[in-house]
Amino acid sequence: MSIALVILAAGKGTRMNSDIPKVLHPIAQAPMLQHAMAAGRALEPERSIIVAGHGAEAVRASVAGIDETAEVVLQEEQLGTAHAVDQARAALEGFSGDVVVLYGDTPFVSAATLERMIEARQRADLVVLGFEAADPGRYGRLVMEGDSLERIVEFKDASEAERALRFCNSGLMACDAGMMFELIAKVGNENASGEYYLTDLVELARREDLKVTAVSCDEAETLGVNSRAELAQADSLFQTRARAELLDLGVTLMAPETVYLAFDTIIGRDTVIEPNVVFGPGVTVESGALIRAFSHLEGCHISRGAKVGPYARLRPGAELAEDTHIGNFVEIKNAEIAEGAKVNHLSYIGDAFVGAASNIGAGTITCNYDGVMKHRTEIGARAFIGSNTMLVAPVRVGNEAMTATGAVITKNVEDGDLAIARAEQTNKPGRARKLMDMLRAKKARLQKGAK
Amino acid sequence: MSIALVILAAGKGTRMNSDIPKVLHPIAQAPMLQHAMAAGRALEPERSIIVAGHGAEAVRASVAGIDETAEVVLQEEQLGTAHAVDQARAALEGFSGDVVVLYGDTPFVSAATLERMIEARQRADLVVLGFEAADPGRYGRLVMEGDSLERIVEFKDASEAERALRFCNSGLMACDAGMMFELIAKVGNENASGEYYLTDLVELARREDLKVTAVSCDEAETLGVNSRAELAQADSLFQTRARAELLDLGVTLMAPETVYLAFDTIIGRDTVIEPNVVFGPGVTVESGALIRAFSHLEGCHISRGAKVGPYARLRPGAELAEDTHIGNFVEIKNAEIAEGAKVNHLSYIGDAFVGAASNIGAGTITCNYDGVMKHRTEIGARAFIGSNTMLVAPVRVGNEAMTATGAVITKNVEDGDLAIARAEQTNKPGRARKLMDMLRAKKARLQKGAK
Amino acid sequence: MSIALVILAAGKGTRMNSDIPKVLHPIAQAPMLQHAMAAGRALEPERSIIVAGHGAEAVRASVAGIDETAEVVLQEEQLGTAHAVDQARAALEGFSGDVVVLYGDTPFVSAATLERMIEARQRADLVVLGFEAADPGRYGRLVMEGDSLERIVEFKDASEAERALRFCNSGLMACDAGMMFELIAKVGNENASGEYYLTDLVELARREDLKVTAVSCDEAETLGVNSRAELAQADSLFQTRARAELLDLGVTLMAPETVYLAFDTIIGRDTVIEPNVVFGPGVTVESGALIRAFSHLEGCHISRGAKVGPYARLRPGAELAEDTHIGNFVEIKNAEIAEGAKVNHLSYIGDAFVGAASNIGAGTITCNYDGVMKHRTEIGARAFIGSNTMLVAPVRVGNEAMTATGAVITKNVEDGDLAIARAEQTNKPGRARKLMDMLRAKKARLQKGAK
Repeated sequence: MSIALVILAAGKGTRMNSDIPKVLHPIAQAPMLQHAMAAGRALEPERSIIVAGHGAEAVRASVAGIDETAEVVLQEEQLGTAHAVDQARAALEGFSGDVVVLYGDTPFVSAATLERMIEARQRADLVVLGFEAADPGRYGRLVMEGDSLERIVEFKDASEAERALRFCNSGLMACDAGMMFELIAKVGNENASGEYYLTDLVELARREDLKVTAVSCDEAETLGVNSRAELAQADSLFQTRARAELLDLGVTLMAPETVYLAFDTIIGRDTVIEPNVVFGPGVTVESGALIRAFSHLEGCHISRGAKVGPYARLRPGAELAEDTHIGNFVEIKNAEIAEGAKVNHLSYIGDAFVGAASNIGAGTITCNYDGVMKHRTEIGARAFIGSNTMLVAPVRVGNEAMTATGAVITKNVEDGDLAIARAEQTNKPGRARKLMDMLRAKKARLQKGAK
Repeated sequence: MSIALVILAAGKGTRMNSDIPKVLHPIAQAPMLQHAMAAGRALEPERSIIVAGHGAEAVRASVAGIDETAEVVLQEEQLGTAHAVDQARAALEGFSGDVVVLYGDTPFVSAATLERMIEARQRADLVVLGFEAADPGRYGRLVMEGDSLERIVEFKDASEAERALRFCNSGLMACDAGMMFELIAKVGNENASGEYYLTDLVELARREDLKVTAVSCDEAETLGVNSRAELAQADSLFQTRARAELLDLGVTLMAPETVYLAFDTIIGRDTVIEPNVVFGPGVTVESGALIRAFSHLEGCHISRGAKVGPYARLRPGAELAEDTHIGNFVEIKNAEIAEGAKVNHLSYIGDAFVGAASNIGAGTITCNYDGVMKHRTEIGARAFIGSNTMLVAPVRVGNEAMTATGAVITKNVEDGDLAIARAEQTNKPGRARKLMDMLRAKKARLQKGAK
Repeated sequence: MSIALVILAAGKGTRMNSDIPKVLHPIAQAPMLQHAMAAGRALEPERSIIVAGHGAEAVRASVAGIDETAEVVLQEEQLGTAHAVDQARAALEGFSGDVVVLYGDTPFVSAATLERMIEARQRADLVVLGFEAADPGRYGRLVMEGDSLERIVEFKDASEAERALRFCNSGLMACDAGMMFELIAKVGNENASGEYYLTDLVELARREDLKVTAVSCDEAETLGVNSRAELAQADSLFQTRARAELLDLGVTLMAPETVYLAFDTIIGRDTVIEPNVVFGPGVTVESGALIRAFSHLEGCHISRGAKVGPYARLRPGAELAEDTHIGNFVEIKNAEIAEGAKVNHLSYIGDAFVGAASNIGAGTITCNYDGVMKHRTEIGARAFIGSNTMLVAPVRVGNEAMTATGAVITKNVEDGDLAIARAEQTNKPGRARKLMDMLRAKKARLQKGAK
């Protein structure tokens, strides 16, 4: 059966206290909307419709970066969830199959749960997702009779017996597309807030003798985000799960609670992650690597046997081959470090290639920016770059070539050659003591003058 | 009504196991005494008297730095709380109004609670602050009859019925100054420890038919600090509250529990704080800034749109204008970075001005110290400082001026000029290979010799 | 009485999902086997036998590094705990005294507990260590009658009354060596898994009318590690205890939960540790030092009054004398920093001596590696090393000597002398503006060409 996702993402999120639309606030470095879209993707949907409202342009731009096949429709006024889904009607004209309604601020629904909703469609026309609440509070209750969902009752309208129920409404639904839009057309807004509610579909469907059922999921999957505190809690929940998964896969996290993971972090077995490591998006680490404390990684690949950090910053495009060493206070950006090469101290390697088994001395900088454009540096294999070498790109240092300490390299260095660029050292006898005496005397005069 | 605070700060804090007086141990980077003083300041006191004892000189110096109108009096021997308050008698000679007794090691009492104590003075002569204890343990119990505080009973003297009470004594009191010192004069020390207890004021007041009452506050407000573990707990409690406040104000903390705040940290709405950021005292961050992971900020101001870190260290006097970028392994001290300027990699900028839209290359250092004195560096607008430039202060680089990579700049560079200070590069053909061969041979000889 | 430890360390630890033998996975930077061996050492054992199996060579190598008097014997096939202990039979031929059986994956048993086991041997032939389990689950139960251990009953064989018991078997035992090996010889493997179980010793001993007893310890001491998640929990437990001990000793940990300690970290009273500090093995910090945030310390000694960090990396062999300052983005390796010396910014000091009260400028690098060998740098007292000085080792800078900013020092500098190595600065009027114009024009051409 074909599936169309309709993901509601129009809300302002007043309690977020933000100029950024709620669904774009990130969890583990991806907009929460992206998490909801990723969950839905498990159903292999033919269509994905995002209903945007507040900050629609920002939502549109974000969606384009996540999934270019997803479509964004606009809900100009926020008149309720049924109204929101109705905005997808035109986009789904001619679509035949099921609509699954998701929420951009409910990022944790699992693929397995969505699949169970679709399965349940074989025995019912309308499927609602519920959850057993530890503390049901003011959630709407799902009143079941056997497998049949009799009605959704709002807390304020609920009898005492109904309030005792702990099976609550998550808001997610699945239904045949045609039937859903037919039912939505009948939803009214004669209620206290004057909104069109998607939950009314249950009663409307029952009236037409349609079969309505509910499936249940873990309460954590339906966690909604309405404030920065809840956003932080959602992030924390994500982290806890992702860390546990890595541990299961045979990754050592010396202090798991100090490792911050991104939504897409991949780490291989027997890799060791020391305390206080931050992963940005797009990082893959192979098996048997060592990521030392205080490292910060984004958009990079780290191969088996590599040692990284402490205090290593790998930026997008950093590619570390096997057995490379990246040491402290080193930044690597858009650069390939070939097998066994070392960049151990206080260096910036950007827009560069470093050949196998080369050693980059402390304080080396690839001067890749001329104030207007960026240029590349190429370093051959088994090269030795002396400390504090400035590699003024575009420039090439050959295989087995060397640069002398402190050299500013503006011209290519051929294989096996040694490049020197250095002023002669002159020692001035006794001059240091004289200079210090002079400076101290001057300071004394200035202090006297200041009084 | 005029208020005089008397803040007891004479204790040694034996369990702190420290040479530093207890009240000077910090919570969120301010001495706990400062927190108590700040709470009291909400009452707009006419006088603030700190009673110091152990480490009195250190306490005096610290108080002078916090509030120069506060007075420190000395309690030479620690003979009990009533005796401690009595040390303020001379200082308050002629003062007419209320005395509020606070404790330097009870840092979390709220302004609202103190205000309620003062309000309660309208209906009673002596007001005691109590709290409902979750686990009252060995605290003294407040025995009430209606609004009247009948007596404070020590745990060891309490009947079973009294021990069942959970309303406990915090030690804080408010009373007319004259009356308080009159009552204190009657306090005796005929008890097991031979000390003069302030709690005796309740019984003395009752004997004279004065009205005594108690007001209640949250137990967390009366948290006392007696050991390093309790100090850490108090700090943690402060952090939890301060983080929650920031979240409410619309600040994103990606992993709140990894962000360490100072007592006076101010952060604007829609600013994002990545994991593992440490705030020292005196930091203000405007709205819409980004503070990346592993940044360390003290005494600095960060404007809207600025991007800071990862691994940025901003020290006192760092002033970042709008849309500035401070990158990794960069230290900024006592320096203004004007709008849109960038210092992205491995640099030290101290005692300096960097003009708008200027770009400071990797490895740049302002050489501000000559061994005796500090000097200033001035960089104009739209300047381009090449990588590894040493700016030997005092020195000026003009607007739209450039320095070449690796230059040591000792003379001013005028607007639009290019300064070069560099030795010519010479390539020695085949010399790198020869040198390596020689070094390897030498090593082999040495290793052979070592056997 | 003589003691022989037999420490079982042959298991694969399938759930660890690792190529590394389970007992070599680290807790607080020491293999968990090392923790078990350290616990046993409290008994001053005459002999320590480690029974290795999976990864025996790695275990042997690790043991050699921990305690060279310990012996490793091989259990080629893992046929049960009794079989494992039996592998020590030959090694203990002729040994007279007690055998205490420990487990390499039970790292937290305390010295006091082991001592109580030995004491209990005075009143029983065989002593088993038990613990009161909060949730006894499927542990084997210890059935006591008074002081006598009647039997160990496996959960699956236990009656309801026995399942209600919470006194559980830890697996640790103490017994006379001769008697233990005699009993082990009688253990059979006619059970579901076909293994020889050490617990059978209890029944065998009872049959021979030997006295069997059990002593009890805290459940946390018997914590076993079977997965990476449990490894992380064990590390966390270690950290919590070690932090609490430091607090008790009068160390300030501003945010204890962010400080990662090693198994052997020693820190003196009134030292302050800021948030986010990582200790590797072998660190001692004297009293009254300050370790600032984001510092990373291994194998180093820090003296009274020293200030370290933020972002200081001290590697093995770093020796900081009193009142030294090591600042941000500074790496110190195998180097002594004498009293009052300062290395404040962006420097690498390796294989070096820095004399008292010397000042090392920002960006200084000891160029200790020539591509083949490491060499030493010596700096005298009260020297002033200018910013960005490259010290090409082997080299010496004398007392009160100076190096000018940006100098590459290849020749010794005598006491009081000033070394200069610098190209003259030339300013090219108007050249910066022209250069920028050219670059911008070039970029425009390239962009046009690209279309």
